[in-house]
Amino acid sequence: MTPAEYTLDLCDRIAAHTDVPGTITRTFLSPATAAVHALLRAEMEALGMTIRTDSAGSVRGIYPAATPNAPVLLTGSHIDTVPYAGRYDGILGAVLPIALIRALNGKRLPYAIEIIAFSEEEGVRFKFPFIGSRALLHDLTPDDLARTDANGISIAQAIRNFGLDPDNLSDAALTPGTFAFFEVHIEQGPVLESLGLPLGVVTTIIGQSRLGLTFHGQANHAGTTPMSFRKDALAAAARWISEVEAFPANDPELLATVGSIQASPGAANVIPGAVTLSLDVRHPSDEARLSAVAILVGKAEAIAESRGLTLTTVDRGGQASVPMDSVLREALMAAAAPFAALALPSGAGHDAMILARKVPAAMLFLRTPGGLSHHPNETVSAEDIEAAITTCLNFLRCLTPPGSLSS
Amino acid sequence: MTPAEYTLDLCDRIAAHTDVPGTITRTFLSPATAAVHALLRAEMEALGMTIRTDSAGSVRGIYPAATPNAPVLLTGSHIDTVPYAGRYDGILGAVLPIALIRALNGKRLPYAIEIIAFSEEEGVRFKFPFIGSRALLHDLTPDDLARTDANGISIAQAIRNFGLDPDNLSDAALTPGTFAFFEVHIEQGPVLESLGLPLGVVTTIIGQSRLGLTFHGQANHAGTTPMSFRKDALAAAARWISEVEAFPANDPELLATVGSIQASPGAANVIPGAVTLSLDVRHPSDEARLSAVAILVGKAEAIAESRGLTLTTVDRGGQASVPMDSVLREALMAAAAPFAALALPSGAGHDAMILARKVPAAMLFLRTPGGLSHHPNETVSAEDIEAAITTCLNFLRCLTPPGSLSS
Repeated sequence: MTPAEYTLDLCDRIAAHTDVPGTITRTFLSPATAAVHALLRAEMEALGMTIRTDSAGSVRGIYPAATPNAPVLLTGSHIDTVPYAGRYDGILGAVLPIALIRALNGKRLPYAIEIIAFSEEEGVRFKFPFIGSRALLHDLTPDDLARTDANGISIAQAIRNFGLDPDNLSDAALTPGTFAFFEVHIEQGPVLESLGLPLGVVTTIIGQSRLGLTFHGQANHAGTTPMSFRKDALAAAARWISEVEAFPANDPELLATVGSIQASPGAANVIPGAVTLSLDVRHPSDEARLSAVAILVGKAEAIAESRGLTLTTVDRGGQASVPMDSVLREALMAAAAPFAALALPSGAGHDAMILARKVPAAMLFLRTPGGLSHHPNETVSAEDIEAAITTCLNFLRCLTPPGSLSS
Repeated sequence: MTPAEYTLDLCDRIAAHTDVPGTITRTFLSPATAAVHALLRAEMEALGMTIRTDSAGSVRGIYPAATPNAPVLLTGSHIDTVPYAGRYDGILGAVLPIALIRALNGKRLPYAIEIIAFSEEEGVRFKFPFIGSRALLHDLTPDDLARTDANGISIAQAIRNFGLDPDNLSDAALTPGTFAFFEVHIEQGPVLESLGLPLGVVTTIIGQSRLGLTFHGQANHAGTTPMSFRKDALAAAARWISEVEAFPANDPELLATVGSIQASPGAANVIPGAVTLSLDVRHPSDEARLSAVAILVGKAEAIAESRGLTLTTVDRGGQASVPMDSVLREALMAAAAPFAALALPSGAGHDAMILARKVPAAMLFLRTPGGLSHHPNETVSAEDIEAAITTCLNFLRCLTPPGSLSS
């Protein structure tokens, strides 16, 4: 099997293990996860790697360096999924590094490679994402571990039920000497495909603002209230949604989305008295993002005021942009030169966003046909995996850990 | 007590009887309804009227004519309410005629007057309105009577539980000799108040079209999908809502309302893939209404097509405009001359809409402060009731039943 064939085959074998038969659905430390652990352990052990499962449930395999006590390059992604998922989101980034070690064919590098299959990134079971990667940064508090799933089982109990010890989470810490984190992932968007490019190097994991807005008008009878007497909250909201959609036209890096809307009372024969909407704004630049949010909220206020309505807003959190390490990015771009990789931001969050708080981090994206992800028809081509493996091997060859000199 | 004071007092006493303490909520043949029946019977009996409750649960009192076998003028409205109602919607039209009989002070007219307190108009308990008035037209089918409420009790069983016989519904038929139906009702809208007028004479109960429309786009990740790649069903729907709101500007008689909206999947971080909306269009002219519906659906199709989305529509029923009888309208306008009544359409349905299928029908509207109805703060002023009573007495005096000559 070629490295690409090996990668696709292992992704297929992992996809066979699911919490919900007939779908690919794998939540934090479910029984299906144990089967995936067994698969990954067997593959890595066959390559002479040293394997363990940390107390947050992530499988970690070490491929030793040419010399003892060498620095460590960490690479991997998550093996949990959303419900009714595809077979590559996350999984590809846990599997492709095994294909890389396999392709090294026993050759040792001036640094060790640690492959990690994060136990949890999607946040499905506990409405709390990144359990696997947070554990590496000692970023799971007792309150976090007390969070419960739909059956009232806490994260700590789920760890215990899997045969691990939540009191021993310090064993999940970053391996001493880790000098970089590197994650392979599908793009989950249409940009690479639209440009005919197989690969992308992530510039930054873009920041996000989330708000709730409510237009308050006056509910009234749709038959007895003339148009000019209305304070229709939905009509006001509609004007604003159009403003939100039009606003990014002047800034191609800006994303603005109204994803949810509720009209109250919501009856066909009643003019809506109140409408609540979500606003999701993303931009690689935090300053540009915050400015866009302020302008869009201002537009909502102006629309409300001009119609005799009022507006209330709620901050539903957000996060700053997380730039990837510039040295690693340049090394990846150079390694991907044969394929003319695109430097592009990631609009979705990834484990690399968490790891970047402690270690230089980088991400390689693979073209996602149709931009289709979080869907059973999610695919990735063998050719693009081949290009990614070639790029990664170039990257590994050129990578210079701190304290060493380039060969 | 003046006739207006009497009317307001009786409305207050009726409001004390409710299915839900602390609110005014009175559904079809609830125990509270029995108490209201007792009140109405006592008031009408005190005026020498002959009272019965028909098998659809409507209380009916006859004030005899000057001569036997005279024609019958039917007047009344409903005594059921929406949940958390006010005290005048419907009730006023059942109570004010009793004040009229009282004001006649024993004087007989060339026609009998039958006052009816319809058992049901709002459609709350069985999601099926106009039970009381339908019964007068033999318009309740066995299927209708088998309809069940939230507790699985059928209309027939509810009638039986109230001590009436649903197999005897023919006793609810229009009283032989009924030559006209006349209904007093609050406007439930802001038009009379905005013009400073106490009274309105209804020209027509306007027709209505109800549709469901769905814009089908493509759900996608709000972070990984650039604006130009989106097929955002909510953004398309928003454009259309603005078109719906703007469209009636050229036709002041047209009402167009989007009252309900659902976006799917409805998550803040997912571009909506489908949006379903309601459209409610009303116009006194059926032709103008149907033309407006066709144009608005066409606009939705054009918006969908221009964005690469598709549109589906569902007809959710509707009804033609029901004009009030022109002779009765003119008589009412003449009777209301001292108050400069406004001829205006009714945007809401009323019992008169049902009765108009069989007998000439007319409606008198009273100004509704703030246009507020279906609300605990619904009010009507004593002055406006005084004006309505004066108008009604003029109307009764001038009314010429068929086969008789005006005095």
